[in-house]
Amino acid sequence: MTGRRVAVIGAGSSGLACIKCCLDEGLEPVCFESSDDFGGLWRFKENPEPDRASIYHSVIINTSKEMMCYSDFPIPAHFPNFMHNSLIMDYFRMYADHFRLTKHIRFNTKVLQVKQKSDFSHSGQWNVETENKDGKKEKHIFDAVMICIGHHCQPNLPLHDFPGIETFKGKYFHSRDYKTPEEWRNKKVVVIGIGNSGGDIAVELSRVTKQLYLSTRRGAWVLNRVGDNGIPLDLTINRVLNFFVKILPYGFLCSLVEGQLNQRFDHALYNLKPKHRLFSQHPTVNDDLPNRILSGTIQVKPNVRRIQGSSVEFDDGSVVEDVDLVVFATGYKFSFPFLASQVVSVTENKASLYKYVFPPELERHTLAIIGLVQPLGAIMPISEMQARWATRVFKGCTKLPSQSAMIKDVKSKKEEMKKRYFLTQRHTIQVDYIPYMDEIAEMVGVKPNIPRLMLTDPRLWMSVLFGPCTPYQYRLRGPGKWAGARQAILTQWERVVRPMQTRPCGEPESKKSSKWPVILAGAALGLAGYVYRDGLADVLQNPAALLDKIKVYLPVHSFRV
Amino acid sequence: MTGRRVAVIGAGSSGLACIKCCLDEGLEPVCFESSDDFGGLWRFKENPEPDRASIYHSVIINTSKEMMCYSDFPIPAHFPNFMHNSLIMDYFRMYADHFRLTKHIRFNTKVLQVKQKSDFSHSGQWNVETENKDGKKEKHIFDAVMICIGHHCQPNLPLHDFPGIETFKGKYFHSRDYKTPEEWRNKKVVVIGIGNSGGDIAVELSRVTKQLYLSTRRGAWVLNRVGDNGIPLDLTINRVLNFFVKILPYGFLCSLVEGQLNQRFDHALYNLKPKHRLFSQHPTVNDDLPNRILSGTIQVKPNVRRIQGSSVEFDDGSVVEDVDLVVFATGYKFSFPFLASQVVSVTENKASLYKYVFPPELERHTLAIIGLVQPLGAIMPISEMQARWATRVFKGCTKLPSQSAMIKDVKSKKEEMKKRYFLTQRHTIQVDYIPYMDEIAEMVGVKPNIPRLMLTDPRLWMSVLFGPCTPYQYRLRGPGKWAGARQAILTQWERVVRPMQTRPCGEPESKKSSKWPVILAGAALGLAGYVYRDGLADVLQNPAALLDKIKVYLPVHSFRV
Repeated sequence: MTGRRVAVIGAGSSGLACIKCCLDEGLEPVCFESSDDFGGLWRFKENPEPDRASIYHSVIINTSKEMMCYSDFPIPAHFPNFMHNSLIMDYFRMYADHFRLTKHIRFNTKVLQVKQKSDFSHSGQWNVETENKDGKKEKHIFDAVMICIGHHCQPNLPLHDFPGIETFKGKYFHSRDYKTPEEWRNKKVVVIGIGNSGGDIAVELSRVTKQLYLSTRRGAWVLNRVGDNGIPLDLTINRVLNFFVKILPYGFLCSLVEGQLNQRFDHALYNLKPKHRLFSQHPTVNDDLPNRILSGTIQVKPNVRRIQGSSVEFDDGSVVEDVDLVVFATGYKFSFPFLASQVVSVTENKASLYKYVFPPELERHTLAIIGLVQPLGAIMPISEMQARWATRVFKGCTKLPSQSAMIKDVKSKKEEMKKRYFLTQRHTIQVDYIPYMDEIAEMVGVKPNIPRLMLTDPRLWMSVLFGPCTPYQYRLRGPGKWAGARQAILTQWERVVRPMQTRPCGEPESKKSSKWPVILAGAALGLAGYVYRDGLADVLQNPAALLDKIKVYLPVHSFRV
Repeated sequence: MTGRRVAVIGAGSSGLACIKCCLDEGLEPVCFESSDDFGGLWRFKENPEPDRASIYHSVIINTSKEMMCYSDFPIPAHFPNFMHNSLIMDYFRMYADHFRLTKHIRFNTKVLQVKQKSDFSHSGQWNVETENKDGKKEKHIFDAVMICIGHHCQPNLPLHDFPGIETFKGKYFHSRDYKTPEEWRNKKVVVIGIGNSGGDIAVELSRVTKQLYLSTRRGAWVLNRVGDNGIPLDLTINRVLNFFVKILPYGFLCSLVEGQLNQRFDHALYNLKPKHRLFSQHPTVNDDLPNRILSGTIQVKPNVRRIQGSSVEFDDGSVVEDVDLVVFATGYKFSFPFLASQVVSVTENKASLYKYVFPPELERHTLAIIGLVQPLGAIMPISEMQARWATRVFKGCTKLPSQSAMIKDVKSKKEEMKKRYFLTQRHTIQVDYIPYMDEIAEMVGVKPNIPRLMLTDPRLWMSVLFGPCTPYQYRLRGPGKWAGARQAILTQWERVVRPMQTRPCGEPESKKSSKWPVILAGAALGLAGYVYRDGLADVLQNPAALLDKIKVYLPVHSFRV
């Protein structure tokens, strides 16, 4: 199918990756972007636009730069670890420039309809109808379609759950319509919802408001961006930990990590402790919340029972008078308005997609949904991995299982989700970063071969196993292999440290305070022995050399670069 | 000297305590306040006024409510633990109302001169000249004078250390002139100094600026307000810990706590690590700094070398162009302009005062400086303790040592300071909360009698020893004894927890994660045995009952109230 044309719908972080992957695979992408620039969600605009994602001015991403980058295009060393939305846009521009993606994008062009061609069962082709800014409609035929519209376009605004909202005398809006705090100086504000938007907006507003109330039905477990020792939290998760996560009993694992979170602040003391366990909810990341609660500038409240005039009554009977603003941080819904419902049906935010990408019922697998996941981790490398898979499937290089096998897989995934998460439309597209990436990578043939690495490149092996699971790991082998991947992995800690090297700092540290590296290394060695028994004999003949190498792979503890 | 008149200069947090203590001791206070309200530093005004302290809009105090309150007037249970300046003012108003202090204050009255009366050596009296708003001058005679003008009136603006500042095209001001961030949205700002003002202002500005640079000559150790488990940090310090602080070698102690701080964020990695040890500097308290640095919104820079036009060059040669604002968070100087220099001479921010209160050379001790300390802890209870002491000295109920003994003490204090802190005019009035409070309390006769408490009131004894060293402890006995002190101590944790009880939260916790209470309790028991050997025999006859009581005194771990 080389040379065939692929419609990419949307030029956000997923769309850009799709264009790039199409080009890599010799496909011809045509990307339709309804606005006048790429970047999607991450492009800040002063005024929110209907049917488009919209962020507030201060948004900083919760995943660190080494974990959120595209797998063959590391973020510049001097960029900070957690990037402001404007820097994310800068990175996207570099990516688009470097791989010459922009010329494949048709801006100001909206997709009206995507429909199987009449000979679809034979050709796999799609009719795509578009409309440009001047209202001019156009019809196209494509060999495949990649849908990259994200899941933050349609705000979920469940007003019917808030009786009396129609009598409310103040202003209210969805979190997507929030931009900056100044307007609300010395006002009383209620934020509903303690997801990432709710938490962030509550914290920001609480610095200017007279009083901020943060209403939450269930409470939440709150993670920090800044992990122990000041390391970005997501960099502390590696394949070894992931292994333990897989084998440890769920309850034990939750207790372990919940205990750690409670050391930062006791969730019961702060009345945020939810009834559900840590891993049963998409986590809220917020470093500032405890301080705001302890200073009373944020008051945590239960669910809103009713609203009357300018009063808001909560489930515990408490009433707050003279409320000026209610912010509904109640999340998003997704849908595919340009797609016939029999292609991908969405009910209660649930879509039946094989690995969240392919509608299993289609006769020909020439349609992929990219980026429709809510990862515990960064979405960019996941979208990119999905795009690599989808383009390989389009070309016929990678085969999908039978329809029944796919439907079975979808069902079992849904069962798992139901067992683990509490029932809400928020938890329909959850994926865990490492397992999901590995799962797709295996199908593409790019999953790092860890036993082999141990034997052929122990230095790299150590980094892949004990280091953060950075996206470069999926460029070491197979289709799309990138010659720079090894070097990118070996230098990843340098790029973490670099942006902070803005003030020359005294003498090097003589001793390290954390005992974790040693414990982890010990545990990991034991584990490695267990998992990769076959190859271990070689290594055991020279354990000293191996131990020596461990140091190289825990470079977080020798920060001087 | 009962019934005699005392001039209290300034109606800030120290002045209020002085009025109250004068009344308690049957003295007749007349407080002169140059502005139209009390509260001093803590009263926010939109526009800074010359020779008066000035704070920015969002200032929240760094000491928690149970540690910062006056010793016989707990802060209301529902008030947050770390109070916004507006709430501190509310508390001052309650205090002033409750003890009817306001009628003793003469507002809009400035003190022009305080001078010994010609018969001072005999009468100990003072001539005080004042001026009201209309320029009307008045002369008074007082039997004693308490100076409560604080040490945040005169900004330290060392422009001569910044060559080229006169060519600077942007705006610059001292941190006291900072109010709100909005004006600096999308601008480039350099904040000089990483004390508490510098840190706070940098963090706040960094949320709106294009880029914020935080320049520090020496770096800093950064503490968190929110301590482990989310407990206010200052509540985790108790008499047992204080004992260990006294006996442990300085270097070991520093390493221990520095290690803990590095667990929050590695000060070397963040290029903030100073060359001096933790306890050699007044600490910077800042919970938000790591997150701002990791997101690059704050860049830490070395000292400013020179300024030219709109460029700022740093000591490492790096240059930042197009700087819009430089904030000098360079601290304060103090002086007593209305006092002849031979009474209290101040050079390089050093004054020779016995225990920071009494000029030792005066023939009669009828002049006290109140609140001229920079505590590791809250200043209000310290000022109050000083005022209790001073009024007792005025009345002749407490005697001061001989002049030579006092001068010797002043000298040895200065030596200690020189040994411990690095040389700067910032570290001339440092005191540690518990040792200093105990020192003064002992002279007044109100230091809690811990061995006696153990025998007569073991429940209270446990709280006094293992609980936070709240000011109520100094109202249990002696002059100024307050009947409510015991109850205030036993209910202090309830007042910590109460403001967070704004959302009913699920089931009670079944198990506690922290092992520290047990370890500490064990260590403390051993220690108690060592320190209070004499009385221990009794207790040892019923160890089970004692162990049972320990639980009551670690109520931080049974938060349900």
